Amino acid sequence: MKFEPRIPNWRSYVPILDILGLYTRGQWHADLIAGLIVGVMTVPQAMAYAFLAGLPPQAGLYACLLPMLVYAVLGSSRHLVVGPVAVAALMVAAAIGDAQLIYNKAATEIAVILSLEVGVILLLLRLWQMGGLINLLSHPVISGFINAAAILIIFSQIPAFTGMPPKAGDPFDQLMWFVEHLDQMAALPVVIGLFCIGTIWFFQNQLVQTLRRFNVHIEAGHLYTRIGPLVALLLTAAVVWLFDLDKAFGLATVGHVPYGLPALTAPMFDLVLWTDLLDSAAMIAVVAYVESYSIATSIAAKEQTRINPNQELIALGVSNLGAAFTGAYPVAGSFSRTSVNYDAGARTPLSSVVCGVVILGSLLILTPLFAWLPAPALAVIVVLSVIRLIDLRSIGRHWRIYREDAITSVLTMVSVLVFGVETGLLAGVGLSIAFFIRSSSRPEVNVLGRVGDSEHFRSERRYEVKIVPYVVCVRIDENLYFANSNQIENKLMKLVHRRPDTRHLLMVFSSVNRLDVTGLEMLFRLNRNLDTRGITLSLAEVKGPVMEQLEATNLKDVLTGSVFLSTDVGMRALEWENQLREEHERSESNEFTGENHDQQTDPIDLKAP
Amino acid sequence: MKFEPRIPNWRSYVPILDILGLYTRGQWHADLIAGLIVGVMTVPQAMAYAFLAGLPPQAGLYACLLPMLVYAVLGSSRHLVVGPVAVAALMVAAAIGDAQLIYNKAATEIAVILSLEVGVILLLLRLWQMGGLINLLSHPVISGFINAAAILIIFSQIPAFTGMPPKAGDPFDQLMWFVEHLDQMAALPVVIGLFCIGTIWFFQNQLVQTLRRFNVHIEAGHLYTRIGPLVALLLTAAVVWLFDLDKAFGLATVGHVPYGLPALTAPMFDLVLWTDLLDSAAMIAVVAYVESYSIATSIAAKEQTRINPNQELIALGVSNLGAAFTGAYPVAGSFSRTSVNYDAGARTPLSSVVCGVVILGSLLILTPLFAWLPAPALAVIVVLSVIRLIDLRSIGRHWRIYREDAITSVLTMVSVLVFGVETGLLAGVGLSIAFFIRSSSRPEVNVLGRVGDSEHFRSERRYEVKIVPYVVCVRIDENLYFANSNQIENKLMKLVHRRPDTRHLLMVFSSVNRLDVTGLEMLFRLNRNLDTRGITLSLAEVKGPVMEQLEATNLKDVLTGSVFLSTDVGMRALEWENQLREEHERSESNEFTGENHDQQTDPIDLKAP
Repeated sequence: MKFEPRIPNWRSYVPILDILGLYTRGQWHADLIAGLIVGVMTVPQAMAYAFLAGLPPQAGLYACLLPMLVYAVLGSSRHLVVGPVAVAALMVAAAIGDAQLIYNKAATEIAVILSLEVGVILLLLRLWQMGGLINLLSHPVISGFINAAAILIIFSQIPAFTGMPPKAGDPFDQLMWFVEHLDQMAALPVVIGLFCIGTIWFFQNQLVQTLRRFNVHIEAGHLYTRIGPLVALLLTAAVVWLFDLDKAFGLATVGHVPYGLPALTAPMFDLVLWTDLLDSAAMIAVVAYVESYSIATSIAAKEQTRINPNQELIALGVSNLGAAFTGAYPVAGSFSRTSVNYDAGARTPLSSVVCGVVILGSLLILTPLFAWLPAPALAVIVVLSVIRLIDLRSIGRHWRIYREDAITSVLTMVSVLVFGVETGLLAGVGLSIAFFIRSSSRPEVNVLGRVGDSEHFRSERRYEVKIVPYVVCVRIDENLYFANSNQIENKLMKLVHRRPDTRHLLMVFSSVNRLDVTGLEMLFRLNRNLDTRGITLSLAEVKGPVMEQLEATNLKDVLTGSVFLSTDVGMRALEWENQLREEHERSESNEFTGENHDQQTDPIDLKAP
Repeated sequence: MKFEPRIPNWRSYVPILDILGLYTRGQWHADLIAGLIVGVMTVPQAMAYAFLAGLPPQAGLYACLLPMLVYAVLGSSRHLVVGPVAVAALMVAAAIGDAQLIYNKAATEIAVILSLEVGVILLLLRLWQMGGLINLLSHPVISGFINAAAILIIFSQIPAFTGMPPKAGDPFDQLMWFVEHLDQMAALPVVIGLFCIGTIWFFQNQLVQTLRRFNVHIEAGHLYTRIGPLVALLLTAAVVWLFDLDKAFGLATVGHVPYGLPALTAPMFDLVLWTDLLDSAAMIAVVAYVESYSIATSIAAKEQTRINPNQELIALGVSNLGAAFTGAYPVAGSFSRTSVNYDAGARTPLSSVVCGVVILGSLLILTPLFAWLPAPALAVIVVLSVIRLIDLRSIGRHWRIYREDAITSVLTMVSVLVFGVETGLLAGVGLSIAFFIRSSSRPEVNVLGRVGDSEHFRSERRYEVKIVPYVVCVRIDENLYFANSNQIENKLMKLVHRRPDTRHLLMVFSSVNRLDVTGLEMLFRLNRNLDTRGITLSLAEVKGPVMEQLEATNLKDVLTGSVFLSTDVGMRALEWENQLREEHERSESNEFTGENHDQQTDPIDLKAP
């Protein structure tokens, strides 16, 4: 997991310096436009995600200020937009819910502690060179987790969308409950929600054509096509204000949002609470990092640049510390906003700075208006952003490539839905490790034969090859280690049992990269057991590191056969040895039975005894 | 984990039938002697282990009757002696201790439930073809566990040996406590204990020489050299009876042992208690199986026979059911008694039957005498049997072969000592899996070069090889999977970054036996990222199963290079392609700059642009 063999220059920790040194006017124009587009997209999303996390709307907006600025300075991706994201919001909601049951604390107090811990954990992962731990989250686990998280988020929005009281329990319980109580659905939130869906759909898909009819030509992806959510919010807020929908009809709204910048505050220290939140924070940190890293690398690949995974740990860690001290909740790289940022032509992290200025502007100008924002409108924004994350078709594709991965993906999804985010994610990691161990514990043991008269040896099951008598050549297709050495030993002993005239066993180690003690003891035992049957054991194509391990023991001394450089050399030597032995035995039996030469000509006797 | 591809004959499940069919008088004589020797050794051990398990002494003796008979009928080993063992006794003691804190049950009631569950679990492992799970216990984990168990057992005998009250806590606490309270040590138990040690030592090591002085010649390993423990017990019991040591001096003795056979009783059903005991039972089952299987295979190796792991699950499972219905506690194959049985010349499982008859005889004849057996004498027998299990020297050997295994062994030992048997064993398994994943997540990526003019390619780090420009050939020394694909991608991208004139990358897949979805997606991404740098990606030596996985995707269509059968073929093709391209480019530049041929002769220009 080491990426810098030398001590790096301090400037390498602040990537923005290299960017600003070469900054051009053209880049600034591109960044300005992209930043404005992402900004108007972020304002409603940030508030909606804050609600999802069980926090006041300003917590979401605050999560876009300092954290975004920090990432712009420290991040190694030029396009990643950091801030509030849906999946982290869901995990924060769960952590806050659990903690509030025990501790009498405000949700925001718990959220800033979480941010602080997430930041510290990410920095510690960097410090301890443990970023590689993240790799334990396999693609199928992440995809199953994202699917489940999206479903959980969508279900969490049903109460806001329908005006029905929220129901605890897993999504299946919730679905049953909502279906049973459909009569309690309120008309007003649904109407507002549907209006928002319509507005957003119109701006995203119809605006370009509609404007063209009025001879106004804009490109697809233009700033105007992104303002649907903002327009929907402003229009519905205006309607709420006009008709007093909140007071007269009891419509849930955002309510008071404080004007201006967040206060700089440190999280309050409480050892028991902090310890309690630690496991949630660790999971949020891992998910935040995986999400950010994967979106950043997928864009870097398009741009032919590289993301430095260690620098990302630092950037994301400090961003979360920024969140902790400005009353926000844990941040991560946003899938949706990052791709919009990239599509809108952003060139440098300065687009994030522009975006931050838009958020700041809305905090300074729009706060009075936010009070009338109806909850169903925010619910619609959340649902429309996460619904695109659901990808069930990949399961079928995985099934064809590697079944275990499809199973892992489905079981991770189900576990997250049934047991919650953290347990589900851990179950997924455990399952993918278990499947890996399982498959490596059932290695293929292929009997090899010579291809024609060449130097190449291939499996007799898949190729037409030449097998010689008395010499069995097998390739072990896995590292020899504790989980498979018993299996391999059993397979080899059965093999020589089935071929009772075996004299030499040659093990081809081309796939063996490592031995552990259990595997090595197996080799000793195998050597001994074969010896008692009069079979020699030889090795071929032993790699350097494995050879060093063998040399740390006396295996080479006790080995009944030899260690050959290549399978070809080994097979030739063993075939020759066998021939010599046969000739020797024949001449010996000639000596002892010299008088009855007539019996010796019996063809059966010419075969090996 | 399948061992029988065809449905086996029912007779194959009852190995004794084949043995009895060919039974000879010579075998019977050998079995009789071995059975007697093991029998006189078993009587004191069985009672001592029962005490260790927190059970009355007869529970140990009962564990030798039906279970031993069952194993003789069903076992696939001819020499394994099943019955009470020290390590299982320790685990039973822990389980009983925990359960008695909550449930108001007699220790024997809990012990028979454990036996039943152990039996059922072993049979289920057979039924579900899950015997392979046992392989997760690597050699270092087992050795660390056995070391710790032996130490725990020795400490558990200190109170009986010293007459001091028992002390709860881990061995370190216990040691501190005993050292602090040395003044409470009673003289009488220590004297009896030392006398037993002396007697056993005399019979084991001095008897042959002493008898020779009296012109009586017996062989080493003779029945008489094994009766030391029994003699010590009988002598000390006689002394206790003569001087009324138990009543007059408060010496702890075995007390009342019921006369005759155990009653056939079924374990009482209690759902909550049964569920509670399940995890302890699972651990006991695994340990019992591992212990039995490893001693059985080590003797089978000497005898050139094979142990059928599936049949062992059945035999040990039914043996434990036998224990459950005869008031005994979980049984396993005993290390010490099995090796004595083998050394004494046993030929078939009938020696176990003889041994059972000896136990039965002692239950019918000796029970009145057992009442006066002093507890310190039994403690000595336990300590002398388990002290031989401790093996700390192997840790140093492991360190030289594979450091991770030495660490695993030590940490397993410490965890068992500090956190108890079950947690410690799980920690050991977890640790060995973690180390395996860790090392496979840091694969070697070796740049290969041609050895001379041969077809062989070797790592440039370890061999003197020929590297050609523009073509980089790398061998991935591990399966491509979720835990290492990010690492491998990073290493490869850095590699082509460091060799900026790379045109072709050839990945040698000789060590890749499997791909998962994460690994495959990495290949797609790598192919794309290399393409944007103008580098083609080719594969060589792709094994059959991996090729099938590749064919389930469109990788071969999008791959910028080719899939070659061998590294040699691939390298020749790529070198040739590169030559063609260079010539083509040279002729093209000749066309465009046809007028200034004098510049073209510049040697720098002859190199690739």
